[in-house]
Amino acid sequence: MQEIQLIDIRQHILSDNQNLANEIRQDLTNNKTFMINVMASPGGGKTCLIVETIRRLKHKYRIAVIEGDIDSLVDSQKVSAEGVTAIQIRTGGDCHLDAGMVSLATSQIDISQFDLIFIENIGNLVCPAEFDTGSHRRVMLLSVPEGDDKILKYPLMFSVSDALLVTKIDTKPMFDFELSKLKERAEVLNPGLHIIELSAKTGEGMETWCNWLEQQIQTIL
Amino acid sequence: MQEIQLIDIRQHILSDNQNLANEIRQDLTNNKTFMINVMASPGGGKTCLIVETIRRLKHKYRIAVIEGDIDSLVDSQKVSAEGVTAIQIRTGGDCHLDAGMVSLATSQIDISQFDLIFIENIGNLVCPAEFDTGSHRRVMLLSVPEGDDKILKYPLMFSVSDALLVTKIDTKPMFDFELSKLKERAEVLNPGLHIIELSAKTGEGMETWCNWLEQQIQTIL
Repeated sequence: MQEIQLIDIRQHILSDNQNLANEIRQDLTNNKTFMINVMASPGGGKTCLIVETIRRLKHKYRIAVIEGDIDSLVDSQKVSAEGVTAIQIRTGGDCHLDAGMVSLATSQIDISQFDLIFIENIGNLVCPAEFDTGSHRRVMLLSVPEGDDKILKYPLMFSVSDALLVTKIDTKPMFDFELSKLKERAEVLNPGLHIIELSAKTGEGMETWCNWLEQQIQTIL
Repeated sequence: MQEIQLIDIRQHILSDNQNLANEIRQDLTNNKTFMINVMASPGGGKTCLIVETIRRLKHKYRIAVIEGDIDSLVDSQKVSAEGVTAIQIRTGGDCHLDAGMVSLATSQIDISQFDLIFIENIGNLVCPAEFDTGSHRRVMLLSVPEGDDKILKYPLMFSVSDALLVTKIDTKPMFDFELSKLKERAEVLNPGLHIIELSAKTGEGMETWCNWLEQQIQTIL
């Protein structure tokens, strides 16, 4: 009985979320503002990637970042130190961002004044995959230290993502991480998944990633 | 309106969960079976720790492992290769284990035939912290590559845990990880938190961890 109740509400929430996400995306497109949802485990390298991407693209695009966290302002502070607009969402306990939370954030800024908005989602490979936030693209990060088997355990995240960034690639000698295994599995699950290896620390792969991102931005202009 | 509905059901679920968890724990204690809930991010090192602990303790204790995953049997296979009983829970989409799922698993075995049961929870630093599974102790892993700031972002997990295992300590030279910062923050949030640094790969710290675990097992005998 209890479980049936839960499922009903979940479907209701997901359907409401989808409608709102579609509205957000349309509004952004009308304003020629591109939004990308960045998802990963805790410590997967989201903030570091966003900061390094900002450094490379901030002279070309007007950038804002929506930071999602259970608690703390630590990521917003890192991002705003780069001179871009940061909006922090504190979920209190929720383990993912949804379209409602993102619309609260976008309503605080004049979106027409931005070309590129990053959403840094809560560190979690499960629930963020279920909720469309209204972004144009979804990118997931998998760091080398996490292991190449994560696609077996968190398949939805790998299925809904447009690109997979294999991060901390500079630490590969320290870990048993077989990229070929990951690629094989991804090919079955999500053949359209674009895979880029990078290290935000050493800069390896950052140009490839920025080029891909810029191509995606072009699609809404 | 929608949000109020959600909160009611959540409280209902959490309260039902707590009652069932208390029953599970009592039943285990009556049978002198110690259960420990192991929680971490994806790739934090849970399976590796459990396998290495089994290798050290299996000649002394009769061990079973309850494996929680969204999908796949990969961890159960690793654990059963060590000759211990493995019970896999596939949640389908749920991002945490709860007492109901654990009771489904414990009902499949004669618990009186086991001294030590590990629960390997879903890789997630958020929701697993909210649900008592009926275990006697909760231990969380934070791997060095994840960074020392995770306590700011996922405070509940650090608050509810009895021990924090800082894993993959052998990779410290590769990462900016300040253990002193983490310890300072933990001292404020959860002064009783027992912190052990270890590497399941090199064996460093494994004896300290096994000693702590054996002390905990003694408390129910």
